[in-house]
Amino acid sequence: MELLKGAPVSAAIRAQVEEELARIKGPVPRLAVIRVGERPDDLSYERGAVKKMEAFGLRVQTYVFPEDISDETFKAEFKTINEDPDTAGILLLRPLPGQIRERDIEAMIDPAKDLDGISPVNIAKVFSGDSSGFAPCTAEAVIEVLKFYRIPIEGKRAVIIGRSMVIGRPLSMLLLKENATVTICHTRTREIQTVCREAEILVAAAGKARMVDETYVSDGAVLIDVGINADENGALCGDVDQPSMEARRIALTPVPGGLGAVTTAVLAKHLVQAALGVLP
Amino acid sequence: MELLKGAPVSAAIRAQVEEELARIKGPVPRLAVIRVGERPDDLSYERGAVKKMEAFGLRVQTYVFPEDISDETFKAEFKTINEDPDTAGILLLRPLPGQIRERDIEAMIDPAKDLDGISPVNIAKVFSGDSSGFAPCTAEAVIEVLKFYRIPIEGKRAVIIGRSMVIGRPLSMLLLKENATVTICHTRTREIQTVCREAEILVAAAGKARMVDETYVSDGAVLIDVGINADENGALCGDVDQPSMEARRIALTPVPGGLGAVTTAVLAKHLVQAALGVLP
Repeated sequence: MELLKGAPVSAAIRAQVEEELARIKGPVPRLAVIRVGERPDDLSYERGAVKKMEAFGLRVQTYVFPEDISDETFKAEFKTINEDPDTAGILLLRPLPGQIRERDIEAMIDPAKDLDGISPVNIAKVFSGDSSGFAPCTAEAVIEVLKFYRIPIEGKRAVIIGRSMVIGRPLSMLLLKENATVTICHTRTREIQTVCREAEILVAAAGKARMVDETYVSDGAVLIDVGINADENGALCGDVDQPSMEARRIALTPVPGGLGAVTTAVLAKHLVQAALGVLP
Repeated sequence: MELLKGAPVSAAIRAQVEEELARIKGPVPRLAVIRVGERPDDLSYERGAVKKMEAFGLRVQTYVFPEDISDETFKAEFKTINEDPDTAGILLLRPLPGQIRERDIEAMIDPAKDLDGISPVNIAKVFSGDSSGFAPCTAEAVIEVLKFYRIPIEGKRAVIIGRSMVIGRPLSMLLLKENATVTICHTRTREIQTVCREAEILVAAAGKARMVDETYVSDGAVLIDVGINADENGALCGDVDQPSMEARRIALTPVPGGLGAVTTAVLAKHLVQAALGVLP
């Protein structure tokens, strides 16, 4: 088993961000992180994002609202942040509490500041293979890892486990754009191990701790583990059962130490792109 | 080989349309068909759509503009039709000539009148599995055929040949919504016959006359032929080489006589849904 670590990928993106940052006249771009409530997942992702922005020499400000904020009040606050000329990009931690109509927020967010690709405009662009929009950072991070490690995608069979709007669906379109033959699996897929063993590139985004064991992979496969789970002892683990892969001739992104660092690096890249206005 | 004909599916949709039509107070819904130039494909589709609307008791008006109309003039004309309260739904024949910025028109069209799902709002809804938007009629017609003939979709392996925004991509999402395990193939797919033979439901939307022959199918498969091509003698044919399937234990939508009639029936269904405002 070969490990595909995230740190060198993040470092390469950092070099690209610093180069683009040097071209920006005026203030350093500022990321607005918007969080409602105190969900541990949100706090953990926020910490990573803040740390990464600071490490990359970017500005970041966190806006925190109470869990029970009304739909109306949150929208007014969101509007202010969205329209602030000093907000170059927005990261909205989701899901939002039930009283807030998330669909309205997706429609409100300025597509040019929508770094995680939640607005219909960006979703439609990702879906149609138009790279002038922002894709969800995690989905794009998978492509960054494959490209960094020079793993050919064109003509390869890629299988994705999971069909969420954050990973599975947008990633299927990004892989299609790279000319992979793409299969999407999910909880209703029959004989899922058989389907996954067809993969030359297997992406585990099921959200189930250590679900993907050695029965899911063929020799030579590249595994991208998107999972961020807590195991029975509370330790961070991915969707891939790494111990069962040790003896296999495969390459794997570890958890921790894999995709997470790349995702926040992509967020930083998007922030600079937003500030430069390179994406319409 | 069993033939899955389109006519009975269209008739079933007609019954549904007539029932919904009876609930509409005020004028019969009117479809605006918008055509620029005289492309034979457009004329042929237009004829089918006009005939179907009239047969279903719906109103239809065709707006024809010259091939060399300016971007500015076309947008002004489009705006008028789009905002006309008597326009319940719009079918824009595409692709538009190069001088017209098609992307702008997609952004302009009222999502509630966008019967063929070209606006970013509807695309994003189809992508996210939200059935409150309009999907492209041809993609939805495939689902209608499968459901009419009671072909189970859940858990089945569905393979689509073609990744267009009219069929391949939206259909992949509609099949995913029905819980199929979906694979998308295209011109860069390697060993495409092998991939297609995995299909329990195979959708040919490559736009290549008779490309899909007996080497692409496994016994028991259901084939949906989306192709509308002219063969070497100018006769209408699909993407499936029907003669080579004769002796096979498969089910197939013929061309002609298959999906085409269902597509215009879905257009009629969308028109009535638009008039009823049942989709937001």
